[in-house]
Amino acid sequence: MCSPEIAKVVSERIAREGRPQLSRRNLLKAGSASALGLAFASFAAPARRAAAQGEAGFEVIDLSHVFGPDMPVYTLGEEPTRETYLSVEENGYFIQYWTFYEHVGTHCDFPAHFIADGETVDNFGAGQLVSRAVVINIAAKAAENADAMLEVADIEAWEAEHGEIPTGAVVFMNSGWASRWPNEDFRNADAEGGQHYPGFSGEAVTWLLENRGINGIGVDTLSLDPGNSATFDAHYAVCGNGIYGVENTANLDALEGADNAIVIIGIPRWEGSGGGPTRVLALVGA
Amino acid sequence: MCSPEIAKVVSERIAREGRPQLSRRNLLKAGSASALGLAFASFAAPARRAAAQGEAGFEVIDLSHVFGPDMPVYTLGEEPTRETYLSVEENGYFIQYWTFYEHVGTHCDFPAHFIADGETVDNFGAGQLVSRAVVINIAAKAAENADAMLEVADIEAWEAEHGEIPTGAVVFMNSGWASRWPNEDFRNADAEGGQHYPGFSGEAVTWLLENRGINGIGVDTLSLDPGNSATFDAHYAVCGNGIYGVENTANLDALEGADNAIVIIGIPRWEGSGGGPTRVLALVGA
Repeated sequence: MCSPEIAKVVSERIAREGRPQLSRRNLLKAGSASALGLAFASFAAPARRAAAQGEAGFEVIDLSHVFGPDMPVYTLGEEPTRETYLSVEENGYFIQYWTFYEHVGTHCDFPAHFIADGETVDNFGAGQLVSRAVVINIAAKAAENADAMLEVADIEAWEAEHGEIPTGAVVFMNSGWASRWPNEDFRNADAEGGQHYPGFSGEAVTWLLENRGINGIGVDTLSLDPGNSATFDAHYAVCGNGIYGVENTANLDALEGADNAIVIIGIPRWEGSGGGPTRVLALVGA
Repeated sequence: MCSPEIAKVVSERIAREGRPQLSRRNLLKAGSASALGLAFASFAAPARRAAAQGEAGFEVIDLSHVFGPDMPVYTLGEEPTRETYLSVEENGYFIQYWTFYEHVGTHCDFPAHFIADGETVDNFGAGQLVSRAVVINIAAKAAENADAMLEVADIEAWEAEHGEIPTGAVVFMNSGWASRWPNEDFRNADAEGGQHYPGFSGEAVTWLLENRGINGIGVDTLSLDPGNSATFDAHYAVCGNGIYGVENTANLDALEGADNAIVIIGIPRWEGSGGGPTRVLALVGA
């Protein structure tokens, strides 16, 4: 049966029987993650901590912006497009048609983005897509200087307060930039078109790789590097060392300071890609 | 700084310094999920079970096929396209350009796919995207009859052996069909173009909604309904009741029978969508 025939069948069914009524379930009953009765053990704490959490469950935090044509993008003209291809009213069901360039919206950079023989999204190990999450806040200095970088000193200050970053973590920079999304001051271009927002220093990424064995980094801005970078040190440190970087994350305030957080990089297995649109979710122990 | 300028900078840097060497990290050290030291408590078991699992960690199972132009699709002609837009060699970094219709590959159907005022992907509660996972195997009858359905009797037989399906689960049909991907017998069209593969019966979905408060269903075939359906009962039961359905899942054999499994629906927040490409990952307690 081909598509027009299917659409005809569905349309005739709707004309005959009407559309089904929405009978919303009790979301409190079935829909919240905390109803799942799952618990996380702390990475560093003794095993009894898991017992104390018991059936307490966890919370899901969405670190993703909506992906659509009106998003701020690194390179103007690379905005995605969407249009209605089939609709419930005319065809019985709804499908949109999309076009996009890979590195826009909440998305992830993989090695092949900067390295010709680097690993692609479709072949990257799924085990590395689920990681401990750490958030380092540099909003105070970013408010003073849009070109600020997350430096080794910021990592050391974070560890002095919170303890050592665990092996295999994703380390996020929270520069406070997500509150500007999707306005023009998110991209924050000057009169010459140069962009100004915070990012990681290459040294900080290299330090995290060598000393903490990170799985990846994440930023709440358009680029792993600060917007005014001409050398892309953070991109090279990430892609050249077989890890990944997440850009345009949302809602890091909610994740900051949470115990037992893990982050899931929900990127479809885009064939041959150096990156692409991603759902980034965090699970936080209750 | 605009894109051509950036590309020039990157190209010049590569010409001057050469590309960075890949210095692969020790994946055993940092890359495997089991190194994360996280543990899941069993849904039904007492809290001490979590303590017993202690720092044992969990395994990540990828339930997703590669997303690309050569995938089998429900409606011929709706295959996605990809092309190289920028390359490392010529531009300093690599970006592909994609086009796609939403409902192909490993993807998820949300209410708006069949219901004009149904919830869209971008606004669907993130808490429902992380769920307990249950796999019901109907491969034996599917091998006899490609039009077989997962029926209420199959659910009852599963529960007789494994116990009651927990509230808020995603229930997957494992029909053995994933081993046919991406060959023609996955779509399995007859001489008239009619498709033949298994799916859920509408009654089974309704039973799971009313009696087990499920978050969603999943199939290893092209459609929630069997390929020969003319009435789309499973689609209406899913979309009409505010839950979701996952299509073209892979690797359910690895998930089947696993204790403490949860599934994560990693779908980018496609604006206004009734569904779209998705990374489906499962976490299985060690």
